[in-house]
Amino acid sequence: MVVEFSMWPMVGASVSEHVAKVIKMVDESGLPYKVNAMGTVVEGEWDEVMGLIKKCHQLLAGQAERVITEISIDDRKTRSNRIEGKVASIEKVLGKEIKK
Amino acid sequence: MVVEFSMWPMVGASVSEHVAKVIKMVDESGLPYKVNAMGTVVEGEWDEVMGLIKKCHQLLAGQAERVITEISIDDRKTRSNRIEGKVASIEKVLGKEIKK
Amino acid sequence: MVVEFSMWPMVGASVSEHVAKVIKMVDESGLPYKVNAMGTVVEGEWDEVMGLIKKCHQLLAGQAERVITEISIDDRKTRSNRIEGKVASIEKVLGKEIKK
Amino acid sequence: MVVEFSMWPMVGASVSEHVAKVIKMVDESGLPYKVNAMGTVVEGEWDEVMGLIKKCHQLLAGQAERVITEISIDDRKTRSNRIEGKVASIEKVLGKEIKK
Repeated sequence: MVVEFSMWPMVGASVSEHVAKVIKMVDESGLPYKVNAMGTVVEGEWDEVMGLIKKCHQLLAGQAERVITEISIDDRKTRSNRIEGKVASIEKVLGKEIKK
Repeated sequence: MVVEFSMWPMVGASVSEHVAKVIKMVDESGLPYKVNAMGTVVEGEWDEVMGLIKKCHQLLAGQAERVITEISIDDRKTRSNRIEGKVASIEKVLGKEIKK
Repeated sequence: MVVEFSMWPMVGASVSEHVAKVIKMVDESGLPYKVNAMGTVVEGEWDEVMGLIKKCHQLLAGQAERVITEISIDDRKTRSNRIEGKVASIEKVLGKEIKK
Repeated sequence: MVVEFSMWPMVGASVSEHVAKVIKMVDESGLPYKVNAMGTVVEGEWDEVMGLIKKCHQLLAGQAERVITEISIDDRKTRSNRIEGKVASIEKVLGKEIKK
């Protein structure tokens, strides 16, 4: 499944120090991922993806009194390599490259 | 933590038969919960809440080729009974009851 | 359409003073709504609902350097009174009342 | 402000034909944007971004009986070029490039 998540430690306007620690943890997980301006997209089975998100969330919960975590899951049977594949299928319909 | 989730089996416009099965599973979990028009709010520790959401998601993934699941987590240290408590704290600031 | 929104002014762990102002604005809008622990559900046409959410967002943006706003829209043709109706249709399938 | 949105026409498992029309509309808007596997990130003022999202949503609502639209807004005062800038600030903290 493909999953995007965002984490907001409620510590004030600036959170990049905290978010960087999360991205480091994602990078070390070995799961395929891509970071965008609003979240991180990861691909894998439920337990590997949600296990990683739990670790990231708990890292921040250890540093901030309150953490908001948003998770969106797109689970489609029999498909894989969807981080690249979903965007490619849009490009195929449009017949041209899009900004990504 | 307090968690709201919504699940969208991609089977067409009508999904209430599927959603009802999810609510039944939530009800049987024993965790405190409330259903609203856009999702279900559950309260508990990470493993109990996310374990329940995994079961609900997999129930739908067994019935639909594609399932979209949205999860929002509000994790605030040292607070509990927040399904009722968060709304009550707004009412306290406003000095009156609100629609809920 | 039925819309749920949540707003997080990035000012620290406690945000109920800010959220109360938003709920007051929703209440004064005259649109049907219900508040739950994770957000506020409002029903109406695009311009009335999104106009209200814009006003709420800008109220908070005037008070906090950074504001995160999450919006979920469920737009289903030819249906109305869905704040009550969606939950009622689940209860009808289950044949009993659910916690709401 | 930076905004990510996703739209799910409830027409079955395959939605790329519909999503391609939305991306075309975003591309023609002239607003800065990037598409990822789970959504489209756009940057601009409230009225330009939400005006675009309204047009995209209504395009799909004209083609499907039911459409689910998810919107996340990150509004931070005095910042611009944040589609690139937010990721760059994480890379700066980490001292290395990340996958994006």
